[in-house]
Amino acid sequence: MTKVAIVGYGNLGKACEKIAVQNKCFELIGIFTRRNPDLLTSPFGTKFYHQKDMDKFKEEVDVLVLCTGSKNDLVPLALRGAEDFNTVDAFDNHNEMKKYVSTLNKVAASHNHLSIVGAGWDPGLFSLMRCLFEGVTGSYAHTFWGEGVSQGHSEAVRGIEGVKRAVQYTLPREDAIVLVKEGRGDHLSNYDKHKRVCYVVADDLADKNAISMQIINMPDYFQGYETEIHFIDEDEFLKDHCHLNHGGKVICSENINEQFVIELDLMLDSNPDFTAIMLMSYAKCADRLYRKGERGARTILDIPVTYLFDDDRLDIISKYL
Amino acid sequence: MTKVAIVGYGNLGKACEKIAVQNKCFELIGIFTRRNPDLLTSPFGTKFYHQKDMDKFKEEVDVLVLCTGSKNDLVPLALRGAEDFNTVDAFDNHNEMKKYVSTLNKVAASHNHLSIVGAGWDPGLFSLMRCLFEGVTGSYAHTFWGEGVSQGHSEAVRGIEGVKRAVQYTLPREDAIVLVKEGRGDHLSNYDKHKRVCYVVADDLADKNAISMQIINMPDYFQGYETEIHFIDEDEFLKDHCHLNHGGKVICSENINEQFVIELDLMLDSNPDFTAIMLMSYAKCADRLYRKGERGARTILDIPVTYLFDDDRLDIISKYL
Repeated sequence: MTKVAIVGYGNLGKACEKIAVQNKCFELIGIFTRRNPDLLTSPFGTKFYHQKDMDKFKEEVDVLVLCTGSKNDLVPLALRGAEDFNTVDAFDNHNEMKKYVSTLNKVAASHNHLSIVGAGWDPGLFSLMRCLFEGVTGSYAHTFWGEGVSQGHSEAVRGIEGVKRAVQYTLPREDAIVLVKEGRGDHLSNYDKHKRVCYVVADDLADKNAISMQIINMPDYFQGYETEIHFIDEDEFLKDHCHLNHGGKVICSENINEQFVIELDLMLDSNPDFTAIMLMSYAKCADRLYRKGERGARTILDIPVTYLFDDDRLDIISKYL
Repeated sequence: MTKVAIVGYGNLGKACEKIAVQNKCFELIGIFTRRNPDLLTSPFGTKFYHQKDMDKFKEEVDVLVLCTGSKNDLVPLALRGAEDFNTVDAFDNHNEMKKYVSTLNKVAASHNHLSIVGAGWDPGLFSLMRCLFEGVTGSYAHTFWGEGVSQGHSEAVRGIEGVKRAVQYTLPREDAIVLVKEGRGDHLSNYDKHKRVCYVVADDLADKNAISMQIINMPDYFQGYETEIHFIDEDEFLKDHCHLNHGGKVICSENINEQFVIELDLMLDSNPDFTAIMLMSYAKCADRLYRKGERGARTILDIPVTYLFDDDRLDIISKYL
């Protein structure tokens, strides 16, 4: 039994709560929020506490599951959290990853804790596939995202002043998929393989042009991509843009010496629900690694898959190998 | 630079030789054979030695790459090899895996060596996928093999007295793939999902009925499967049955609570060529793990994917996460 607490009560936090409540291997201690906890209710009767009171629970919680948006909130929260807790997160800013892992490693190790970073599906499952496919074959592993809603990018847009609601769809280009499978896609960048489409509800007095400029020029998230921005009203948004399906592919192929195609294909009805599945399974890993004496920051690339189970290692080998 | 020697000079040994010769990170010391080494030649000018002289090379070789068929030869060879060398193999008898890993672990550890077991594509890549998908989601990961030639099964048939040449094709059933993707395949066994088709050239005086009975009743390999056996002449065999394409899928899906499909799809022009890619990349891993001080037997499930590279761990994380 792993005692968890969740920080943040958006889509991801709610999906993690559901897993923690329904799965016997977890005990959910509570949910930490920056909002007024007295105003929040849960269909499962979970207790809410203010984030500033987090440290009062440090003796009770095995792993803190960080479910806030990574654009602004996650890094300081994780660095503070790792002083008192083991943590797990789905941090999704690829370009900041090295610095984040390195900094968090120092904090977690010096406070005798373990943190697992980037344990969603991308970063996460897809990262593991890219690393494995390229490490084994030496050929480039191409990633395609979508068609689907990117939580990280939507959150980044929602963080802009004057934005009331926003969603960002990522779409793969079919012609690029064909080229990659034929082993002729090495020249393609992420910018060639995708487009980004945003639907935004702006505050009444907001400067839409300023919002558009901030989206298009946002480093790491939008800069360099073909980006479409549509301002719509709230009714249309609520009617057409609240479904969170997503998916993607990692494809590694070679058509010169040895001919092969390795493809990982993911189809999700709900992006946050699957991110929560990843996050909670690595919350269990964090607990196991911590009990084994590991300290510092780890990623999905560092952790043998046998840690996904409580079973004896030889039984896992017998079952899966 | 990893100094390797290869044991066995069939399809897999030849494919490993090609990688070792063409890749700057390997130095190929030689190939060990049970045949008369003076009668073997290599397009790359590789030196051949008799297997009984293996131990004379123990100071020169970092990793011994075991490329003999696993049905009869591999286990004793690995247990003997691990006394003098680090080893890597693609042992493919799932049912014997636990015992093999456990025994080899004792030999390797007590002789201060490291062995990596089952580092092909199945067991190997597919094992890692099954373990990861099930570990993360809790849903069953179905494996489909084919359409393609199974080296392990072909080798097993060739090991029967009176068999001159043999090939075994594994075919997935399309109706089973559809059921699994729809999340309605949990009742399907491997026997429901595949059929096995053998083409056999028998020696002139062989008892074909006895050969058929031995194939059909071979535990772990054929027993329980729908198996077709066709006796053909050597000309037809050489004309139609010498291509070694293969492939398969690992599919994990859920259609009740969270709806998702995760699918790994592998298409190979040559089964031994891709098995060799896996095996040689894990030969590099064996060298790295050994230099780090690890001893005993490991599997692909035990090894973090970062060990597939020489690069600094944080640089790997930065690139792939």
